[in-house]
Amino acid sequence: MWEKSEKPIPINGVRLSTQAAGIRYANRQDMCLIEVAAGGRTAGVFTQNLFCAAPVILAKQHLKQRNDIRYLLINTGSANAGTGEEGLQMSQKICSSLASLCQVESQQVLPFSTGVIGEGLPVEKMQKVLPQLVEQLTEDGWSEAAEAIMTTDTRPKTVSYRFALNGQWAHITGMAKGAGMIKPNMATMLAFIATDCNLSQPQLQESLHSVVGSSFNAISVDGDTSTNDALMLMSTARSPVNIQTTEDLQVFQSALLQVCQDLAKDIILDAEGATKFINIRISGGRSESECRQIGFCIAESPLVKTAMFASDANWGRILAAVGRSGVALDIQKVRISLGTTLVVEGGTRANSYTNADGQREMEKSQIDLSIDLGLGNAQAHIWTCDLSHEYIKINAEYRT
Amino acid sequence: MWEKSEKPIPINGVRLSTQAAGIRYANRQDMCLIEVAAGGRTAGVFTQNLFCAAPVILAKQHLKQRNDIRYLLINTGSANAGTGEEGLQMSQKICSSLASLCQVESQQVLPFSTGVIGEGLPVEKMQKVLPQLVEQLTEDGWSEAAEAIMTTDTRPKTVSYRFALNGQWAHITGMAKGAGMIKPNMATMLAFIATDCNLSQPQLQESLHSVVGSSFNAISVDGDTSTNDALMLMSTARSPVNIQTTEDLQVFQSALLQVCQDLAKDIILDAEGATKFINIRISGGRSESECRQIGFCIAESPLVKTAMFASDANWGRILAAVGRSGVALDIQKVRISLGTTLVVEGGTRANSYTNADGQREMEKSQIDLSIDLGLGNAQAHIWTCDLSHEYIKINAEYRT
Repeated sequence: MWEKSEKPIPINGVRLSTQAAGIRYANRQDMCLIEVAAGGRTAGVFTQNLFCAAPVILAKQHLKQRNDIRYLLINTGSANAGTGEEGLQMSQKICSSLASLCQVESQQVLPFSTGVIGEGLPVEKMQKVLPQLVEQLTEDGWSEAAEAIMTTDTRPKTVSYRFALNGQWAHITGMAKGAGMIKPNMATMLAFIATDCNLSQPQLQESLHSVVGSSFNAISVDGDTSTNDALMLMSTARSPVNIQTTEDLQVFQSALLQVCQDLAKDIILDAEGATKFINIRISGGRSESECRQIGFCIAESPLVKTAMFASDANWGRILAAVGRSGVALDIQKVRISLGTTLVVEGGTRANSYTNADGQREMEKSQIDLSIDLGLGNAQAHIWTCDLSHEYIKINAEYRT
Repeated sequence: MWEKSEKPIPINGVRLSTQAAGIRYANRQDMCLIEVAAGGRTAGVFTQNLFCAAPVILAKQHLKQRNDIRYLLINTGSANAGTGEEGLQMSQKICSSLASLCQVESQQVLPFSTGVIGEGLPVEKMQKVLPQLVEQLTEDGWSEAAEAIMTTDTRPKTVSYRFALNGQWAHITGMAKGAGMIKPNMATMLAFIATDCNLSQPQLQESLHSVVGSSFNAISVDGDTSTNDALMLMSTARSPVNIQTTEDLQVFQSALLQVCQDLAKDIILDAEGATKFINIRISGGRSESECRQIGFCIAESPLVKTAMFASDANWGRILAAVGRSGVALDIQKVRISLGTTLVVEGGTRANSYTNADGQREMEKSQIDLSIDLGLGNAQAHIWTCDLSHEYIKINAEYRT
């Protein structure tokens, strides 16, 4: 049994705080600290971009060295990516400062940065606010934290569930940021999820891998994979609920999947310039990977996306995207539907299809597009958004 | 020795004409006929999109059956793609009508269509103008023909060269159309090139394959491969020049490459909403294909394209695109330059780089972007354009 909460449920053993360090803009909360109480466990998945950011390199190292992570320190305003050795030293310095302030090891701190690529960190400015960050830590800090980690996002993204396990309530609360440069290849820009369940680090890691494919790794705004993507999962073991059996773990993973899918959807709903949520479902494939390949090919087609923006049932653009995806298909078997309306079968427009039917589906704020390949039993979904004037405006003006 | 001609040079043995059949709009030249005199030879390369259009299927069949093609019949207003068996019959009917009018076999006619996908052809309207098309054929028809085959193009595209071979002048004239749905995977939307040289059909075919990789297949406007791409090359053997030796063929192919590159560049310069020509050169690769993979990844990144539109030297977006391309790289060896300005080396901003230098390069109407991978000797170039408000406008409003 699950219950979604309107407001983020505090997680016993996780405290958060925010501060304005003036990294890029004055008077903006641009730093966020997450504390995991002693005894907690942390796992993560990170961007596969080869030019991954200094904080990503460091966070991966620290996670390898220690399984008792205590602090996650996040800044916006600069991604500290493409900054070489100097960038690494900047992130290291801030981790060390925080560690000595909190009397933990530097490797127990994980750094995260998001913002413009190619700029380092204003280390002194950031060090200056560390004492207030530590002082103001509170279990009620999720909403403020979700706001502090935003860049081009227009609203904070938090999701919270409680779920029953062995007759007791356990909790998961998560937050994410991201609106552009979104085609997570392991995770989205930044997402932090915590639970009070008792899970080992390997269980956390396995759980992340089991859900990321159909949540964060199933979304694309613009096909651009960030240098700073990270998805972190923490457990504090403070709930009375223990994960003991494989079934318990499955219950937990179902709840985690729900949280990740909700956050991933939130990112698409708040995507730069987006006016529509597009749910692409590919079925009848020989493998999940070929379903995903076709899904992303449609999701990233500027012509499909602009037709969606215009509510124009220009299904020829969808057909062209399917046909160029690189997947070997029998086009006679491909069936394309918008909502419950069959549009294409046998390589051409379905007999029953009318433009008015297509138009009605395209005018919805959520467009359900299904492609049945008719070749096997594999399936996948990809979530994306339309491409609007506003996307161009945001991305031509960002940084200037 | 080559000489480029301002106006299209007529090709002895090739005649052209245009007519307004009212396929989609009234009073617009929407049909074009090209006649190749008896004795001429024709070769072609076509889209690899699995949902290729009915005319593409038919043109490929006819080219296989006959090496004495006499007529190429082109229409705009409808692509006749995604139209199944019915679409095939429509194209067949028009080929037959023209064939009987001109007393040739139906297989000696090649059909080409461009326009909206998913709609068939108004066969009767088109049949009606065939007699005038035939009657008005003229060797001086290139400019009008280039205008008649346009869709969202803002200007006709013709290129003409004469080149010396064995002390005589030979000629190549070509025309192309295309402005969106451009990532030719064999050829661009539609291009027709003719020469008065004497070449066999296999020589023509080989020549096309030798030039298409670094011309039409090296451009991308939006990553969307059309269902109707075709590039045709005809020889009439009417010049006093004979292609006899391998060296002669190489001279011809150099001239052909020039024509194809000029037309491909023209397509990018006239691309939907484009304000800049972006020349991406990837060198130091282990293979040409990995150079192309990185080039297209940059060329199709909405974030890179919007930064180019804004003349913003946001090199972090270029670096992120290189890093996510899927090619295994040593990021320490990657060097990124804008014009002659070195921007990135050793995984970070070059010491010598200043934002003012980058800005100056980005403000140019042609942006030269070079990526040296430092791994081998292979290289490739990709040409693309920026992504502007106008692209969204054109593609959200097309068809409505």
